[in-house]
Amino acid sequence: MTDSYAPRPEDRFSFGLWTVGNRGRDPFGDFVREPLAPVDAVAMLAEVGAWGVNLHDNDLVPIDASPAERDRIVKAFKDACTRHHIVVPMATVNLFYDPVFRDGAFTANDPQVRAYAVQKTLRAMDLGAELGAKIFVLWGGREGTETDACRRPDDAIKRLREAVNYLCEYSIDRKYGFRFALEAKPNEPRGDIYMATTGAYLGFIATLDHPEIVGVNPEVAHEQMAGLNFLHAVAQAWEAGKLFHIDLNDQVPGRYDQDFRFGSANIKSAFWLVKFLEDVGYDGPRHFDAHAYRTEDVCGVKEFARGCMRTYLILRDRAKQWNDDSEIQSLLADQRSPTPLAGRDALLATHFDRAAIARKGLAYERLDQLTMEVLLGVRT
Amino acid sequence: MTDSYAPRPEDRFSFGLWTVGNRGRDPFGDFVREPLAPVDAVAMLAEVGAWGVNLHDNDLVPIDASPAERDRIVKAFKDACTRHHIVVPMATVNLFYDPVFRDGAFTANDPQVRAYAVQKTLRAMDLGAELGAKIFVLWGGREGTETDACRRPDDAIKRLREAVNYLCEYSIDRKYGFRFALEAKPNEPRGDIYMATTGAYLGFIATLDHPEIVGVNPEVAHEQMAGLNFLHAVAQAWEAGKLFHIDLNDQVPGRYDQDFRFGSANIKSAFWLVKFLEDVGYDGPRHFDAHAYRTEDVCGVKEFARGCMRTYLILRDRAKQWNDDSEIQSLLADQRSPTPLAGRDALLATHFDRAAIARKGLAYERLDQLTMEVLLGVRT
Amino acid sequence: MTDSYAPRPEDRFSFGLWTVGNRGRDPFGDFVREPLAPVDAVAMLAEVGAWGVNLHDNDLVPIDASPAERDRIVKAFKDACTRHHIVVPMATVNLFYDPVFRDGAFTANDPQVRAYAVQKTLRAMDLGAELGAKIFVLWGGREGTETDACRRPDDAIKRLREAVNYLCEYSIDRKYGFRFALEAKPNEPRGDIYMATTGAYLGFIATLDHPEIVGVNPEVAHEQMAGLNFLHAVAQAWEAGKLFHIDLNDQVPGRYDQDFRFGSANIKSAFWLVKFLEDVGYDGPRHFDAHAYRTEDVCGVKEFARGCMRTYLILRDRAKQWNDDSEIQSLLADQRSPTPLAGRDALLATHFDRAAIARKGLAYERLDQLTMEVLLGVRT
Amino acid sequence: MTDSYAPRPEDRFSFGLWTVGNRGRDPFGDFVREPLAPVDAVAMLAEVGAWGVNLHDNDLVPIDASPAERDRIVKAFKDACTRHHIVVPMATVNLFYDPVFRDGAFTANDPQVRAYAVQKTLRAMDLGAELGAKIFVLWGGREGTETDACRRPDDAIKRLREAVNYLCEYSIDRKYGFRFALEAKPNEPRGDIYMATTGAYLGFIATLDHPEIVGVNPEVAHEQMAGLNFLHAVAQAWEAGKLFHIDLNDQVPGRYDQDFRFGSANIKSAFWLVKFLEDVGYDGPRHFDAHAYRTEDVCGVKEFARGCMRTYLILRDRAKQWNDDSEIQSLLADQRSPTPLAGRDALLATHFDRAAIARKGLAYERLDQLTMEVLLGVRT
Repeated sequence: MTDSYAPRPEDRFSFGLWTVGNRGRDPFGDFVREPLAPVDAVAMLAEVGAWGVNLHDNDLVPIDASPAERDRIVKAFKDACTRHHIVVPMATVNLFYDPVFRDGAFTANDPQVRAYAVQKTLRAMDLGAELGAKIFVLWGGREGTETDACRRPDDAIKRLREAVNYLCEYSIDRKYGFRFALEAKPNEPRGDIYMATTGAYLGFIATLDHPEIVGVNPEVAHEQMAGLNFLHAVAQAWEAGKLFHIDLNDQVPGRYDQDFRFGSANIKSAFWLVKFLEDVGYDGPRHFDAHAYRTEDVCGVKEFARGCMRTYLILRDRAKQWNDDSEIQSLLADQRSPTPLAGRDALLATHFDRAAIARKGLAYERLDQLTMEVLLGVRT
Repeated sequence: MTDSYAPRPEDRFSFGLWTVGNRGRDPFGDFVREPLAPVDAVAMLAEVGAWGVNLHDNDLVPIDASPAERDRIVKAFKDACTRHHIVVPMATVNLFYDPVFRDGAFTANDPQVRAYAVQKTLRAMDLGAELGAKIFVLWGGREGTETDACRRPDDAIKRLREAVNYLCEYSIDRKYGFRFALEAKPNEPRGDIYMATTGAYLGFIATLDHPEIVGVNPEVAHEQMAGLNFLHAVAQAWEAGKLFHIDLNDQVPGRYDQDFRFGSANIKSAFWLVKFLEDVGYDGPRHFDAHAYRTEDVCGVKEFARGCMRTYLILRDRAKQWNDDSEIQSLLADQRSPTPLAGRDALLATHFDRAAIARKGLAYERLDQLTMEVLLGVRT
Repeated sequence: MTDSYAPRPEDRFSFGLWTVGNRGRDPFGDFVREPLAPVDAVAMLAEVGAWGVNLHDNDLVPIDASPAERDRIVKAFKDACTRHHIVVPMATVNLFYDPVFRDGAFTANDPQVRAYAVQKTLRAMDLGAELGAKIFVLWGGREGTETDACRRPDDAIKRLREAVNYLCEYSIDRKYGFRFALEAKPNEPRGDIYMATTGAYLGFIATLDHPEIVGVNPEVAHEQMAGLNFLHAVAQAWEAGKLFHIDLNDQVPGRYDQDFRFGSANIKSAFWLVKFLEDVGYDGPRHFDAHAYRTEDVCGVKEFARGCMRTYLILRDRAKQWNDDSEIQSLLADQRSPTPLAGRDALLATHFDRAAIARKGLAYERLDQLTMEVLLGVRT
Repeated sequence: MTDSYAPRPEDRFSFGLWTVGNRGRDPFGDFVREPLAPVDAVAMLAEVGAWGVNLHDNDLVPIDASPAERDRIVKAFKDACTRHHIVVPMATVNLFYDPVFRDGAFTANDPQVRAYAVQKTLRAMDLGAELGAKIFVLWGGREGTETDACRRPDDAIKRLREAVNYLCEYSIDRKYGFRFALEAKPNEPRGDIYMATTGAYLGFIATLDHPEIVGVNPEVAHEQMAGLNFLHAVAQAWEAGKLFHIDLNDQVPGRYDQDFRFGSANIKSAFWLVKFLEDVGYDGPRHFDAHAYRTEDVCGVKEFARGCMRTYLILRDRAKQWNDDSEIQSLLADQRSPTPLAGRDALLATHFDRAAIARKGLAYERLDQLTMEVLLGVRT
């Protein structure tokens, strides 16, 4: 049984350096784990069976590193990746940790901060390109407010657009070939974050100078913090051709950002998500943006990483079983018709027997209970 | 496989008349199902394998029924119960539907409303006693506010106490032997409902004249509406000897009251709950206070009812498997020690090596992943 | 004092027939108010000082009315509007009340339902055009799921797009000149509703055949149900040229749809919203999609309607005061600079002194406290 | 105007050392402010007009301080308090920051952790007593779970009870005269925290050995994180004689713990709260458990502290105005009657005219709109 749930490279499972390297600090407590050097993180990811590693610029290179230090660090990291057969599919930039970003980065009121944020991102793009990344994620964690007195939100959007357009030009000019993936979050660490949902970013992208190279990076926890149906957000992005990356983890709705092991909080939501990604043939990275509980040591961190991938693979298996289940398929066949709308005259002339239509039960309770039983492994 | 998940009377599964009889009206839409006469509901419950049926007074007897009508209806209902081997473990009173209760019942500002609510409850207790119920549930769905201008909340609590004490006296004097189970809810249909959580009622009970006959009726959806951990609420009630009844259903946190089929939204929470009830030996009714989706006809309603019970039984099975899993038990054994606190002098004299204690990983990621795999049926 | 907060036609305050006509039914209780005939609603709106009235097709014309009945009703309504100097700025269609829509309208699995929904909308557009409305709102209240087993969400989006494109063609062909305003909601009455946020609709609009005539109708309560910052959603819509209409009411986050009197739950959010609408010069209707508490009779309904408008006008006054406050403006001047980003070479060559930038306090606590004091009327 | 909102000692405003001393670290960012030495915090509190200062043991004395260091620090702190006329009304213990508490303190699985937590608390009680505190707060921030696999929640409650009983005995034996105030929180930093609401603690207290010396310390943000009505929780505690302390701050529902300046998020809720505390004559400390935005320097921290107190005093003024408003009082008089319930025979014999009772509007819309206008300062 174990073998069938062992991760393989073609599963395209990736982890951020900051995920297995998370040291367990939180608003009320200190670090509980030792630092994990990037090269050791790569080794650990190889050991547990991952395919890729992602990073913020400062996960690898300290913010004040000299060019020489930077080059030495990058080289050692690339060597470790090669040695362990780990790729770097995605890179991103940390625009939130340093106090300079306490009021935002691209949207900050201080024009020096905005300029510095763009400069820092250009360099992070250089780094990402050097590591072979083709996806560049932008998470504007500090782009927000505690009080809307500080700035008009439409001004914030204009600043954000100016910055993203600037970055796109840079990628195009340098021939980096990046696809940018914008990551939404409703709040935390700011009281409110602009572009609160994946939908908001889909709307924003349509207003950019280079919309074709900009998509989204939906994160399970971020939509679920607002109690939203994550599958629906992902499906909208996919259907619009904008699902450039995805962040997998888990979260109880209406709470602080929990970043739990994938599938560990909302099994059924995770199931629909995996099923959707597999059904539509999403071929990008399956990135786990999560971290181990604070109760864990390094062994627990490995269990956490293995668990993310195993749960994905178990759910993938269940999704296949669901698709192959003849009763489920028969219920679906009864109900799903692709019939397009008739022409206008025909449509206006049609009489509909509302009562007759409404009388027929749709058997969704049965369909959902069958799903439960597939999921729980009691339907064979 | 099916047989092992067929409900039996000793499972003590009950449904309210209002659950299988729910006609699917909601704030934005009309009824979608025909009325289900109480005697037909009893037959349906027998057909699907339930053990008991619960009711509000007006689920059975119309609010304006004459005494003769009432007696005729009650007799027919008792006959149906007998014929179908269905018991009535719990009764309750409808203090929310009629417009007279628009500002509350026991806590309403109008003293006539408060008096009528108590009168109506006394008669509902007579009815419950006649039907053999030993548990009387009180859900104060209208006891609340849209604006706190209308009443001081401490006055509301005093009115509530006066009413509950009054009802206790009545049960004692009439030798009905009721145990009252108070059911909390945070909001809906009122903007805010007093006694928002099971915990609030546990605190309230301690201030009553007859606390020994008053406990709680926690409902999954009601705690989860506020995003709270339902298991923790149930465990507190159980540990205090106050778990007199329980309402099983499901709910996505932070939303309107959904009353979904048991287990269908939060599988893992449902698992911990079933495991707890079984582990501690809770022997009261397992009452499903839920209803079928509005897309369903009468067949869908039966599927819904069967699904509630099947999911409970599947999870009970998984709980047993969890308890029997040697790796899980070994992880638990490492970590759980009942050692009581030392005496004060010894305790104050002890030196604790904080760093050493904090270094040890607790393996909760492993434990939780094993739980996932038990639940998903891939651990054998 | 009263006079300065009396509504005037140029304030463009409108109410739906369904708002002052709300009869107070909810999931747990029956009607508490008598029906209010549309012509009487118009009279009431005139009495309290409103400028416009909006309607769903079936607020005015029963779903099964004959053409002759329809025409008679419409004529009487138009006469009442004329007599009372009330305009009809917006019309919409009810695709949620009738049981035929229990699984959605444009996205329902049954192709007959989808076709009927479009047909019904075309006729509602005819009605709206006849009444002079130039805005047509589409709220897909039933477009959603209780279980994602029933339909792939990307299929739902395709169906929705097909329908909206169809409606746009109709408006263009008939020269109705409608601007469509799409209204998002995260859940209720469905477990999850597709297009959960205003942002989702902004993304969707970019994929339509006629995006230029489609915008959004954000509703305070709908974004706040998901705990989102409503101002930010409105600002994004405005900045994109898509704020075609707005629904004003109030709501405590994370609950059922409350539709409270404007400003009555979140005073500060309401203030920022009014300030934004006034600052940017939004000149569309200020539509109150709210209803009176269930405790109210017809006098209370009028108080409710008056209160919506008065609170708006008080907040508008406070916004002006905020804009005129010299200390506030001085704090803002210190912090807001429109400086655009430098060219790339200059930007890359700049050295930023992060520590120096981060040392400077931004005085947002002061700014927010001043806002509080403007709002509370203690700053003169 | 300013003078009437200047804080005075009799207002009993207190701040924790950790509030004005908060350095602005959050899950995604580093410190933004320099450390504030306890003696300097005392000076700052005196400067802004506070009456009292509260502390966790380690806010003042480092966890590894020698007895001599401790005594020196405590002496300097007492001197500063005396010099600045600042009292220490409440003390508490930090059972959450050190990694040893990563799985809880009193409820941790490791018996050494439980023992150490009690030992640490006894010493914190010694410290509190030495500083003159008469209230001892217990916030079990780490008493919880990320997975309920780790421990049965009823075991956790038993451990918690054992610990609290132990602490009560110690206070009694040492004649410290403490009143313990238990502080609930639903989640963060743990996935779920046991005793999630003030109500849960009220229920728990009834099961202790010395319930008379144990009450609660409700915190605005903690109840509002779960979307609950804070006033109702406070009123229940007050009515039960258990409101021993209160933590004032503010919070948007359904989010991470924000600890905003009092009144700055939910003005109306803050108003009802202040009105209640003043109306019932609560004479305990008004403790602000909040902190300045991360955008602020030390001037901003003072503005924050001043703003907490000013807003309280403005709202107190508004509450008085509300109580003195003749129209408001007349509406209340119409509706509030203390009539107790009639005797049973009389009650059972009464006929109630439901329709007549339900016909009368309750004028709560008017009452609430008047409240809005008092609050906004437009009603004179």
